[in-house]
Amino acid sequence: MTTTATPESWLAEAARLRALFARDAVANDQTGGQPLAQLRLLKDSGLLTIGVPVAYGGGGAGWSTILRVTRELAKADGSIGHLYGYHANFLHNLLTQASEDQRRDWLTRTVAGNWLWGNSVNSFSHSLFGRRDGDGWILNGRRPFSSGTHVADAITIAWEDEATDARHFAAVTPDRAGLTILHDWDGFGQRQTGSGTVTYDNVRIHDSEVFANPDVVGTPFATLGPLHQQSVLLNVFIGQAIGALEEAKDYTRTKSRPWVYSGHDRHSDDPWVKRVYGELHIRLRGAELLADSALEALNGAWAKGPALTATERGEAAITVAAANVHAGEVALDVTQRIFEVMGARSATRANGFDRFWRNVRTHTLHNPAEYKTRNVGHWVLTGEFPEPGTFQ
Amino acid sequence: MTTTATPESWLAEAARLRALFARDAVANDQTGGQPLAQLRLLKDSGLLTIGVPVAYGGGGAGWSTILRVTRELAKADGSIGHLYGYHANFLHNLLTQASEDQRRDWLTRTVAGNWLWGNSVNSFSHSLFGRRDGDGWILNGRRPFSSGTHVADAITIAWEDEATDARHFAAVTPDRAGLTILHDWDGFGQRQTGSGTVTYDNVRIHDSEVFANPDVVGTPFATLGPLHQQSVLLNVFIGQAIGALEEAKDYTRTKSRPWVYSGHDRHSDDPWVKRVYGELHIRLRGAELLADSALEALNGAWAKGPALTATERGEAAITVAAANVHAGEVALDVTQRIFEVMGARSATRANGFDRFWRNVRTHTLHNPAEYKTRNVGHWVLTGEFPEPGTFQ
Amino acid sequence: MTTTATPESWLAEAARLRALFARDAVANDQTGGQPLAQLRLLKDSGLLTIGVPVAYGGGGAGWSTILRVTRELAKADGSIGHLYGYHANFLHNLLTQASEDQRRDWLTRTVAGNWLWGNSVNSFSHSLFGRRDGDGWILNGRRPFSSGTHVADAITIAWEDEATDARHFAAVTPDRAGLTILHDWDGFGQRQTGSGTVTYDNVRIHDSEVFANPDVVGTPFATLGPLHQQSVLLNVFIGQAIGALEEAKDYTRTKSRPWVYSGHDRHSDDPWVKRVYGELHIRLRGAELLADSALEALNGAWAKGPALTATERGEAAITVAAANVHAGEVALDVTQRIFEVMGARSATRANGFDRFWRNVRTHTLHNPAEYKTRNVGHWVLTGEFPEPGTFQ
Amino acid sequence: MTTTATPESWLAEAARLRALFARDAVANDQTGGQPLAQLRLLKDSGLLTIGVPVAYGGGGAGWSTILRVTRELAKADGSIGHLYGYHANFLHNLLTQASEDQRRDWLTRTVAGNWLWGNSVNSFSHSLFGRRDGDGWILNGRRPFSSGTHVADAITIAWEDEATDARHFAAVTPDRAGLTILHDWDGFGQRQTGSGTVTYDNVRIHDSEVFANPDVVGTPFATLGPLHQQSVLLNVFIGQAIGALEEAKDYTRTKSRPWVYSGHDRHSDDPWVKRVYGELHIRLRGAELLADSALEALNGAWAKGPALTATERGEAAITVAAANVHAGEVALDVTQRIFEVMGARSATRANGFDRFWRNVRTHTLHNPAEYKTRNVGHWVLTGEFPEPGTFQ
Repeated sequence: MTTTATPESWLAEAARLRALFARDAVANDQTGGQPLAQLRLLKDSGLLTIGVPVAYGGGGAGWSTILRVTRELAKADGSIGHLYGYHANFLHNLLTQASEDQRRDWLTRTVAGNWLWGNSVNSFSHSLFGRRDGDGWILNGRRPFSSGTHVADAITIAWEDEATDARHFAAVTPDRAGLTILHDWDGFGQRQTGSGTVTYDNVRIHDSEVFANPDVVGTPFATLGPLHQQSVLLNVFIGQAIGALEEAKDYTRTKSRPWVYSGHDRHSDDPWVKRVYGELHIRLRGAELLADSALEALNGAWAKGPALTATERGEAAITVAAANVHAGEVALDVTQRIFEVMGARSATRANGFDRFWRNVRTHTLHNPAEYKTRNVGHWVLTGEFPEPGTFQ
Repeated sequence: MTTTATPESWLAEAARLRALFARDAVANDQTGGQPLAQLRLLKDSGLLTIGVPVAYGGGGAGWSTILRVTRELAKADGSIGHLYGYHANFLHNLLTQASEDQRRDWLTRTVAGNWLWGNSVNSFSHSLFGRRDGDGWILNGRRPFSSGTHVADAITIAWEDEATDARHFAAVTPDRAGLTILHDWDGFGQRQTGSGTVTYDNVRIHDSEVFANPDVVGTPFATLGPLHQQSVLLNVFIGQAIGALEEAKDYTRTKSRPWVYSGHDRHSDDPWVKRVYGELHIRLRGAELLADSALEALNGAWAKGPALTATERGEAAITVAAANVHAGEVALDVTQRIFEVMGARSATRANGFDRFWRNVRTHTLHNPAEYKTRNVGHWVLTGEFPEPGTFQ
Repeated sequence: MTTTATPESWLAEAARLRALFARDAVANDQTGGQPLAQLRLLKDSGLLTIGVPVAYGGGGAGWSTILRVTRELAKADGSIGHLYGYHANFLHNLLTQASEDQRRDWLTRTVAGNWLWGNSVNSFSHSLFGRRDGDGWILNGRRPFSSGTHVADAITIAWEDEATDARHFAAVTPDRAGLTILHDWDGFGQRQTGSGTVTYDNVRIHDSEVFANPDVVGTPFATLGPLHQQSVLLNVFIGQAIGALEEAKDYTRTKSRPWVYSGHDRHSDDPWVKRVYGELHIRLRGAELLADSALEALNGAWAKGPALTATERGEAAITVAAANVHAGEVALDVTQRIFEVMGARSATRANGFDRFWRNVRTHTLHNPAEYKTRNVGHWVLTGEFPEPGTFQ
Repeated sequence: MTTTATPESWLAEAARLRALFARDAVANDQTGGQPLAQLRLLKDSGLLTIGVPVAYGGGGAGWSTILRVTRELAKADGSIGHLYGYHANFLHNLLTQASEDQRRDWLTRTVAGNWLWGNSVNSFSHSLFGRRDGDGWILNGRRPFSSGTHVADAITIAWEDEATDARHFAAVTPDRAGLTILHDWDGFGQRQTGSGTVTYDNVRIHDSEVFANPDVVGTPFATLGPLHQQSVLLNVFIGQAIGALEEAKDYTRTKSRPWVYSGHDRHSDDPWVKRVYGELHIRLRGAELLADSALEALNGAWAKGPALTATERGEAAITVAAANVHAGEVALDVTQRIFEVMGARSATRANGFDRFWRNVRTHTLHNPAEYKTRNVGHWVLTGEFPEPGTFQ
């Protein structure tokens, strides 16, 4: 990280990586597994630590910059965008959930080691339990959807207290005894996100490792994590849709042939083809602007710090929810419809254009648009904000 | 006009007028004809002259401010939004098409008289012809779609030279001999726009009245009028959609009854109702942001003045076209779907909620989304901008 | 009614009436009120009594034939289709709800008088109550949405027992003392259906007038009325959509002008125009076939008579619900989109094409697609049929 | 083939095979290549020869029956449905294009050998040319999209005369010298259709092998092949959509978990889930009925034999085109949207539900809905039928 780094320089770096990642994106989609080469490039770029505050040796980038980097990376490779975005989301959670000592410890090591963070915290599985044991916990069970753990240097984990069902968070390194990463992710999209299972066999966690930040517990500020997480998703959707439309456009211009009855020499002269590209561009542009507004909403809420009010948090939540729903809807539409204007020869495994649809289709499911839409509608009708919680 | 007027104060004034216009909007939709009371209020507000440059005694408001006023007025009354927006568009055309003397003459009188401008320039009718006669022209024929002429203080007219088919513009006051305003507008929407026929029976125009601005003829700057005109349309679409959604929301909250099988005490607690309001809000929000981006694009292009390049003009044209298409599409959707969540009792003439759909349906036809969409798609595929011309 | 009447001859007669009704449909939409001239033609045609069983002097037409007549009439005039369809629905209810004596009495008089039936039974208003008084009831209150009462010769009424809230039905002629028809229907569509309010001021009903058919009470057969009523709605939707598309097509062929940038001499040569007409035709054709399948389902269920099982009733209910939802959705789409391929000049009050949208928009609200769709989905997921009841 | 075979028995046999094919459909989608096991089952079932006229020893099944078998097989396995449907289409072409001697020869051998036919006739590649050589032709070049050739017992081929560009057809067995099947199909859907390349290196064809049926050349009857081919496509679309919806329904009922904020114990009790299944069922049902109407149209046209008029052919073409467009549109919608009501855990490679979307997306591209829709619209507007030709 040079001292002259700026948002513009980070975005330029992301654009450079995007071009590199595009070369192997089709192959990586087919093999799945670990994105080791891309991770190497990502580490070399310095982009992993830009979200760490300057006080801990990081770049001090704003969340909106980091999410723009996420979007840029996702244009070529949905899995990398996903891993990068979630990585930053766990830095965010560390900043709000952990004590000052814990923050300093983990973030300093993150910068020193140029770490990537993964997670094993899936909220809905209710499958990992802890029991008190001396000055700590013993964890047993499993977590699905543990994105990034297949390549992570550090992992945020969460468990339920077997006695009270209260939820606790901690960070560990993957070499913790009893913790096993199964490498069993089998999604038909987002193939290199490693969103598989982690098992816990008498994993010991010390009390000092359990996140506890008395300053923000119970404040609206402490509940911004889900908005950040929703923002990761929506920027990956948008990035994938932009990438898909650009690849399609290049194909149409250079390879598609006019339909036999079109009467045109070039496929791109067919009014139908123009209309479809026009429609997709227009819808995507609207979704992008909504996504941009959500970036500002998150940044604005974060900037308030612990003084953030419930109303301010709620307004940001509505903006993020709206952007998330719209991004998902438009990304599905774009990634499905590009084929109709590329033509039959485009639909091959070698071209791999279907990865965009598979990625978006997979990723949008973690976050039902129906419920976000209802939240927005409930607010329209009543002025009431959604209860802070997972995915909202 | 006080000297302390600002964009914020103009918008506040527009919001005040909106509330007043909302009271009679249903009745005015039913009667059609001339919006005399509203025009009185509009003149009293000072908003008619804010678009005249300060040098000519006006408010010097930017087009984006004026279009925001247009949008605000259209929330209650599509016809008034339309008349106000087009009025400013004719000020725009005067500024680019007329000579300095003509500008000073007409704009000074506009401010002094607190004038509303109408038009009689429909591009596609090819039904009004002029022949040279001494130091001027004799016009015969007719123009349909002459919006605002039923109440205008001044009118922009256009005719074709019967010998060469070249198009010429001039401004006249409605008392010009031989010019007759038929008051025959019969649209099922935008009922008080007076978009009827003007007939010309040996109307004499002096050469000094014919617009001719040698400084900008043939420049991209001289072709910004159509982008402004498209912006009027799109802001009326957006305003109508916002107004429709707000009126619907109020109705649902205060009058709709839960469906008999819903199991809910309040209609607004039905997940279906929440979802529909959420969807409509989200789509409309995206369209609004795209509309906002088009305002900035127009302002930016205008600020370049005669130095504006063809590329800069083209980029603004694409943004405006995208915003226009999206606004129309979303406004049709919103104004059609609000009824499904208001219920059977909402669909009365007394409530008049159907005026929103009738207004949008009527107004969107002047400007086929198909062709704008193709223009956007052609640019996506080739990087080429649409040829400047009517509606593009 | 000649003795040689057949389904084909009735449909031919309906087609003849359709052509006559088309002449005044725009004017009648504007005036609202009572369709007296059309009712005269309808009575002269003999079509009002074809649904009365032969045993009572009627034509003995099947419900599917009557609903095809409804659809045909609705192509020109949604109000007449509506009145005709509901009229037959009340004959249906008489056949299942009334005793043999009541049936003979009312249906013989219906044939002799060539009567039109209206109704005052709105299920959801809970605003008309009866109290026991000697050998009958005294009714006080009001009913909204009493379609057809403004021109009816006989009226089906329903009230709730003020003591038990049990619902009772009877038939009366409109001259019954204390019954007042307000002629206050103010819908923005279906303008001549007279779906206004009937008030009841100490209206006396004798027990002998209260419908009671012990043979079918509590059987699935006795609950076919709502399926018939849903079928009326869906055939009016379909009829309106077909009529709209045909009128639009004629306009496009004979009056629309090609868009200025189209490069085509005829508007109908523009690929965009072809596509839109193709899309609308294709979707409408699918909806028609689904509507036809619903006619067969209703006929089949009726043919079973009192032996009809709950499962057979349920299967018919699913088919009718599916057809109803689809017809409404497609009719809204068709009646909204025709304008985009007719062009700006089509959108006048004189042309009156907007009546199709206003009719469909109004009429679809009485019958939320959301709940029918859920019923279908619930059956898909569980095999369970909707509980028989109003609108299902 | 037993002598008691009937359409019902063939459909029952197809249903039995469907259940068998469903077991391996996910695995076969992943491996691609040759469906050898399924082909064995298909041959054992006797279904391959039901389309051969009784006079040549076949079952004499109508095309509608064969297309219903196609649809049934496609519910489990899009590739098998495709291969089976095209196989019958080539029997059709043989019946209309070949001489009586050729028909007898090839069809007798087809029955005796229980053959599957493939094709190498892609109309648009213009990449295989023949030159006259003695009493025959020498072919050189290649054909892409040669579906079924990877497992076919006989192949229909087509080439252009290098001198005149006239198109000729013949049938060969795959062992013909110089003909090489590359097994290079790489589509991301319809993975076992073997729609790859066949190369021709001085392949010799005798004049006696070139199809020439003087009785029907130039008649509308001779142009029914493309309607049959379009019917294969549409029935594969419909079959895939039905199969997808049924698999999704089973998953939702047995595996999906309610969303954490739903307030329901079972996912299928969520009104959202009911609505989505309802919508998909309703749309699919409309598309099925349109598909059924197209089967009847094809059967009816075929039954006319060489007496078929151009108008009758045209009417069938419109019905088939409408059904094809609608089937493709609905199948894309169903196969995309099922995931939103199955949930995040459904989207795995092991479940393989994405194969439905990949199959439909791939297959619909061979046949642009845009052009069929325009054909339908052109007919709506003018009454003119599409010129008989490939895909129309």
